[in-house]
Amino acid sequence: MKILILNGVNLNLTGLRETSVYGAQTLEEINTNIKAYCEKDGIETEFYQSNIEGELVNKLHEAFLKKTCDGIVFNPGAYTHYSYALRDAIASIDIPVVETHMSNVHAREEFRGKSVLSEVCVGVVCGFGAGSYIAAIEGLKVKLQS
Amino acid sequence: MKILILNGVNLNLTGLRETSVYGAQTLEEINTNIKAYCEKDGIETEFYQSNIEGELVNKLHEAFLKKTCDGIVFNPGAYTHYSYALRDAIASIDIPVVETHMSNVHAREEFRGKSVLSEVCVGVVCGFGAGSYIAAIEGLKVKLQS
Amino acid sequence: MKILILNGVNLNLTGLRETSVYGAQTLEEINTNIKAYCEKDGIETEFYQSNIEGELVNKLHEAFLKKTCDGIVFNPGAYTHYSYALRDAIASIDIPVVETHMSNVHAREEFRGKSVLSEVCVGVVCGFGAGSYIAAIEGLKVKLQS
Amino acid sequence: MKILILNGVNLNLTGLRETSVYGAQTLEEINTNIKAYCEKDGIETEFYQSNIEGELVNKLHEAFLKKTCDGIVFNPGAYTHYSYALRDAIASIDIPVVETHMSNVHAREEFRGKSVLSEVCVGVVCGFGAGSYIAAIEGLKVKLQS
Amino acid sequence: MKILILNGVNLNLTGLRETSVYGAQTLEEINTNIKAYCEKDGIETEFYQSNIEGELVNKLHEAFLKKTCDGIVFNPGAYTHYSYALRDAIASIDIPVVETHMSNVHAREEFRGKSVLSEVCVGVVCGFGAGSYIAAIEGLKVKLQS
Amino acid sequence: MKILILNGVNLNLTGLRETSVYGAQTLEEINTNIKAYCEKDGIETEFYQSNIEGELVNKLHEAFLKKTCDGIVFNPGAYTHYSYALRDAIASIDIPVVETHMSNVHAREEFRGKSVLSEVCVGVVCGFGAGSYIAAIEGLKVKLQS
Amino acid sequence: MKILILNGVNLNLTGLRETSVYGAQTLEEINTNIKAYCEKDGIETEFYQSNIEGELVNKLHEAFLKKTCDGIVFNPGAYTHYSYALRDAIASIDIPVVETHMSNVHAREEFRGKSVLSEVCVGVVCGFGAGSYIAAIEGLKVKLQS
Amino acid sequence: MKILILNGVNLNLTGLRETSVYGAQTLEEINTNIKAYCEKDGIETEFYQSNIEGELVNKLHEAFLKKTCDGIVFNPGAYTHYSYALRDAIASIDIPVVETHMSNVHAREEFRGKSVLSEVCVGVVCGFGAGSYIAAIEGLKVKLQS
Amino acid sequence: MKILILNGVNLNLTGLRETSVYGAQTLEEINTNIKAYCEKDGIETEFYQSNIEGELVNKLHEAFLKKTCDGIVFNPGAYTHYSYALRDAIASIDIPVVETHMSNVHAREEFRGKSVLSEVCVGVVCGFGAGSYIAAIEGLKVKLQS
Amino acid sequence: MKILILNGVNLNLTGLRETSVYGAQTLEEINTNIKAYCEKDGIETEFYQSNIEGELVNKLHEAFLKKTCDGIVFNPGAYTHYSYALRDAIASIDIPVVETHMSNVHAREEFRGKSVLSEVCVGVVCGFGAGSYIAAIEGLKVKLQS
Amino acid sequence: MKILILNGVNLNLTGLRETSVYGAQTLEEINTNIKAYCEKDGIETEFYQSNIEGELVNKLHEAFLKKTCDGIVFNPGAYTHYSYALRDAIASIDIPVVETHMSNVHAREEFRGKSVLSEVCVGVVCGFGAGSYIAAIEGLKVKLQS
Amino acid sequence: MKILILNGVNLNLTGLRETSVYGAQTLEEINTNIKAYCEKDGIETEFYQSNIEGELVNKLHEAFLKKTCDGIVFNPGAYTHYSYALRDAIASIDIPVVETHMSNVHAREEFRGKSVLSEVCVGVVCGFGAGSYIAAIEGLKVKLQS
Repeated sequence: MKILILNGVNLNLTGLRETSVYGAQTLEEINTNIKAYCEKDGIETEFYQSNIEGELVNKLHEAFLKKTCDGIVFNPGAYTHYSYALRDAIASIDIPVVETHMSNVHAREEFRGKSVLSEVCVGVVCGFGAGSYIAAIEGLKVKLQS
Repeated sequence: MKILILNGVNLNLTGLRETSVYGAQTLEEINTNIKAYCEKDGIETEFYQSNIEGELVNKLHEAFLKKTCDGIVFNPGAYTHYSYALRDAIASIDIPVVETHMSNVHAREEFRGKSVLSEVCVGVVCGFGAGSYIAAIEGLKVKLQS
Repeated sequence: MKILILNGVNLNLTGLRETSVYGAQTLEEINTNIKAYCEKDGIETEFYQSNIEGELVNKLHEAFLKKTCDGIVFNPGAYTHYSYALRDAIASIDIPVVETHMSNVHAREEFRGKSVLSEVCVGVVCGFGAGSYIAAIEGLKVKLQS
Repeated sequence: MKILILNGVNLNLTGLRETSVYGAQTLEEINTNIKAYCEKDGIETEFYQSNIEGELVNKLHEAFLKKTCDGIVFNPGAYTHYSYALRDAIASIDIPVVETHMSNVHAREEFRGKSVLSEVCVGVVCGFGAGSYIAAIEGLKVKLQS
Repeated sequence: MKILILNGVNLNLTGLRETSVYGAQTLEEINTNIKAYCEKDGIETEFYQSNIEGELVNKLHEAFLKKTCDGIVFNPGAYTHYSYALRDAIASIDIPVVETHMSNVHAREEFRGKSVLSEVCVGVVCGFGAGSYIAAIEGLKVKLQS
Repeated sequence: MKILILNGVNLNLTGLRETSVYGAQTLEEINTNIKAYCEKDGIETEFYQSNIEGELVNKLHEAFLKKTCDGIVFNPGAYTHYSYALRDAIASIDIPVVETHMSNVHAREEFRGKSVLSEVCVGVVCGFGAGSYIAAIEGLKVKLQS
Repeated sequence: MKILILNGVNLNLTGLRETSVYGAQTLEEINTNIKAYCEKDGIETEFYQSNIEGELVNKLHEAFLKKTCDGIVFNPGAYTHYSYALRDAIASIDIPVVETHMSNVHAREEFRGKSVLSEVCVGVVCGFGAGSYIAAIEGLKVKLQS
Repeated sequence: MKILILNGVNLNLTGLRETSVYGAQTLEEINTNIKAYCEKDGIETEFYQSNIEGELVNKLHEAFLKKTCDGIVFNPGAYTHYSYALRDAIASIDIPVVETHMSNVHAREEFRGKSVLSEVCVGVVCGFGAGSYIAAIEGLKVKLQS
Repeated sequence: MKILILNGVNLNLTGLRETSVYGAQTLEEINTNIKAYCEKDGIETEFYQSNIEGELVNKLHEAFLKKTCDGIVFNPGAYTHYSYALRDAIASIDIPVVETHMSNVHAREEFRGKSVLSEVCVGVVCGFGAGSYIAAIEGLKVKLQS
Repeated sequence: MKILILNGVNLNLTGLRETSVYGAQTLEEINTNIKAYCEKDGIETEFYQSNIEGELVNKLHEAFLKKTCDGIVFNPGAYTHYSYALRDAIASIDIPVVETHMSNVHAREEFRGKSVLSEVCVGVVCGFGAGSYIAAIEGLKVKLQS
Repeated sequence: MKILILNGVNLNLTGLRETSVYGAQTLEEINTNIKAYCEKDGIETEFYQSNIEGELVNKLHEAFLKKTCDGIVFNPGAYTHYSYALRDAIASIDIPVVETHMSNVHAREEFRGKSVLSEVCVGVVCGFGAGSYIAAIEGLKVKLQS
Repeated sequence: MKILILNGVNLNLTGLRETSVYGAQTLEEINTNIKAYCEKDGIETEFYQSNIEGELVNKLHEAFLKKTCDGIVFNPGAYTHYSYALRDAIASIDIPVVETHMSNVHAREEFRGKSVLSEVCVGVVCGFGAGSYIAAIEGLKVKLQS
């Protein structure tokens, strides 16, 4: 089993900005921990981050066209709230995608409560900090094994 | 560590109704699996289900007043969408609650996309069938350990 | 053929409150008339009323799990307008339910024009006073016989 | 007692279009059944259908000015959702009108859940196929006799 | 100077229905009075009423194509609230049209406060009973003479 | 018969501003014409203008408490759209008030189409330039004489 | 004179939860103070609290059917915002009910500003902490004596 | 292949009204050009226009019941924005209908951007003046041949 | 302790207008009663009324700048619904203000249910007629003493 | 060049209220600084403040009728959000007006994000404290010189 | 004459994803057919696709600055629904753009019915599969030749 | 002091498109003027423009991570209205950003009146053409010096 951990806009600043919201770990540290966690279960991981919406679309296409993974844990950042382009990309591919957020998006500004992606994802996880990626992986494992 | 698995309205019919949406496992079978899963990690579990909104409020109060658990995995069923009573109960207690749904509520009727509880929960998990409870427990573990 | 006549919140006060809206017959008198009307057609009847939402859910579950009737004439009272819990209960069971109101809900306060239950019922009847139960039974008979 | 069965726009195609929604009986067959049903009760019937909004207004006026009937069972078709002209015509006359639909309008497209006529009708019946006309007549009978 | 007094849907019932709202004069009596009032000023009048939206459109076209009048006093009845067809007809012709209502539409049901026609009329008059036609004619006279 | 011509905010600039919308006559010239027009009919007139909302309220109170007139033609200017204070003042007094606008408020910015006053006035006139005052007086005459 | 002090959902936790919002007095202490305050005026008091919506409905019915009090001071808790069942119960009984909140509901989350009960209560009081019950009793006294 | 060119309300004035929006060609001239254009391709054409909503419904029924054509190019005029009657008629028949507008409806008043018909048509074309009919025919040809 | 009783727009007409809504006592009589009620408790009172929004702002400023009172009972009349100017004035001063209405604003026109002031007041009282001022004073006393 | 610095409601309290939002400088001190800043550039200044909406209207009229300045820097305070009276006054005069706010109105309560004045001003400046007046003057200078 | 066929986000997957919606032809095959179709008419074609919003903006700029074509057939994919950036780019250039969609966007999810681009395009075509490009070209030809 | 002048989508066309809205100066000419203006004050400037949303995000990150400037004057073009990605980027960095527009966005299409960025910027300036950059710089200077 192989999982793509896909991070969207501004997530490269994780650990460097608003640490009270997102925690003090950098994205690199989080990724390292995820990798270790998965390896124990024999799960392969790939990591990708971009601030450019179209490049995230391209990455999703690549996963689909080249069959590079079995499932995707996707934290789209603020694109969550308006990127119908990403929505169509997710809906176009036959790989399950889990929408993932570190903060509890429902306890912040009102606009964060609206996702244009959730409807086409298999599931949604939010609120556990870096633990959201872990929970998403666990959910995805059940989904892929059922 | 002890976790309360709290199920709300109509969830006693799980496995008996709309199995294409909720799967064919009964609530009892799901609970048995959760218990086994947790025991491997040394986590104690308690299970409660009610169709009566006020009894769910009472159960949340009890957990708080009697300190019966460290975290709560709560699938409120349809009360999710309008029970400000449950919202206030969750906000009143100092035990972290994870809002949990088996189906991807965002891919169903529009009213299911609106939760009046999410804002006062620590996190939200949906879409993994019975696996949602597992993912919620994993997220809660990270939260309780951080 | 057996029909359950299910009455929800505040309907125990029928004939005792706001008689200009609901008429002067008590619920007991109405039920007696319905029973007599049905017996002429060889239809068996059961009657139940509760002010507690969760108990109405339980009654719907019971009808389903114990197969106690062939159809349900349900006047939910004010739960009509917000009880997604009852909606899910109706949708969960394979017994046709007719949403029934004595008054013309569309000619009263605006909130009464919105029902969260209609979508999952087989049909809706309103405006004929106690006659609404009779009309609902007639409609249900056609439905059950087709 | 005499009842006018009034059918509005597109109902002349009943039995010829979308039979999964409206059933396979033609309007003529339905009317024949209604007539037979009423005759058993000694109720006289009149039938009228038009696709032109203003002609339906004229028919309602005629019933009022010439006192041609005691009650009206009216299936307005799609005019239900926007014809304030029909609404005013119904409100202008002192004959009780029952809004009647064969399908459960609340379980279809969202716009069908909104009626501009219900407020000025005595009652509403929907969801029983051709049985809706029967249920409406039963309700009307109670209303006219009370 | 010649003025067309155009009346729309249900206005043929004026004086016969809801006399507390519209007064007890029939449309014919109102028209006779208007005619007399205008003749004193040397203004010619034409009168037309229809319940059919398309016939009102045709009448507006005729006025434009045959240049049969200098101004139009138009009481559209309930078509006021949704007939974009009449709106386009009014906007298409180069004859000033005054939207006229006998009742104060703003003091009745909410939907009556919305007109889709006002924007393309030269002016609007409401609330003076049959006097609204007189006020509209006076306003139109000033407009035509300026 | 005596009529108060009441003008609200910015109307002192009439003829001095936006003459394409409001015409080139000053308020004084308009008032002179209205006075002459009314004198021919033996109608007495009083004129008042203020830019201060509370002073317009005071003037309406004075008319009521001192019985200084039989009817009021009121052009409130922009207070039309939000002054619930003026609305309450109009509703408090037993003198009929006609809401009057020189321009067709429905053919301008969207906010001008909403009046918080119309519901408590006897009638509304707009769109005839200075002729709107004349039309309003004619309507008011019919109202006061009926 | 006898007054029922009725408390709804979560109010049993008063003084135990969110003390910055609701103060540190427990419900029992508040009730003791209210009782003492009323006794000085010769007013009898009864106290009831429940977390179950239908039980609150039942209590209101009981007051009406058994005439157990002259007025009701009702703090419904979160049921304020959606319980049309309680609204109908209040409207059904001929005992004046005062909607009462300890916090200023308008200065908190937006949903708390909307009450479905206010329209059928005689009055509303909020914002004075435990003092809201006192203010409500004073208002009720004036109401019952006028 | 035979195509019905169906024109709705006010389109008989094309070339006679608002020529800056709709061009200076009359409907007859446009139809003549369409006929010539189609004949080159061996496509038969029929033309119909009415200002009466119900007659347009009747024409759609006729096409369906008598199988008079293979496809329909329909410019409904202002009925586009509210005629659920025409919507139901289009949905009832098994002939593909193309919604067609000469002007770009999205660059005009806001209400023109909303069509209640598009959802049940096969396609939509707007903005090319008389060329919209040509584009619609080309699209329809591809559709009928695929 | 000193309390300012501040009354806004149209309240000078109390007892002279709409007595079915506001009662037959004049503002002067109400104030006299309030004064007597307060004197018994040793509370000093000041009374002020104006119809001009800006003068009410000035009065609030004066209370703040000159420290003329310990609390304010404020019935703003219709300014309640739109005066953000008064809202800012209330928010600017460090004296507690109680929003007070004689009628139950929630049982009247919809616009009266919305207050732009409540959020910045300490509490709200409505529905007890002149008794609302008394209830407000009692609430304020508790607030000032806590 | 001469500029009028116009301040609206509650701005006389600047420096005396909510200093965390508006800073600790009084309006007088701010005006003194603005005057000094402008004098260096040879710009004449006039200052005016009122809490009464109609007086601000009068001041704008005066500037227009007496040509007392070349441009206006206007901080309307809370009138920004609802004073269509001020909007019409600004639109009526041919002097450019810059809407100016000391705080960033978009980072505060939601209602502050809506201005009914911006559309008729030449520009808008907010967020720089007393520096907003300086920025507005700089923008106005460019505008007046181009 | 030269036409640019511009395709936006996810359209590179055409023929590879959701073939029930978009058909089984790849974008390359569609382009080849369009090219052949145009060549018969002597029309030159250029093709461009990108998933990156800003690159589509750049391509529109290039067409304008280098005058590389006479008209543009633009299928923006999901950017249709929110890219005001593309809207401004289209509005900035003096080359007619036709908004084009293969599916009938009005018969799918609600968000697809809203385009932020239509207002600044010359026309819109949707619903004919690959035939939409052909219909758009035909419409564009009429537009460019008129 | 160093200021970054950041321009977003389509602003490279300034002076080349819609010159009635944006003026005839090219972006390069504007930047040259800004540079000269700042140099007189000893302020250093940097200029950057991109049409790609993600590149603007990257530039904001760079300023933050490399501390390349003290303040940012940012004209985002149409991204203003929907780019929550840019909003998060601005909120993530500790450098003050001024939202700047050349035109008065409130006097144009409705969508331009909504900014998703203003809330996280320190201030907003619009309406002065190229002068908006100057005004923004002046405001920023006050902010940075306070």
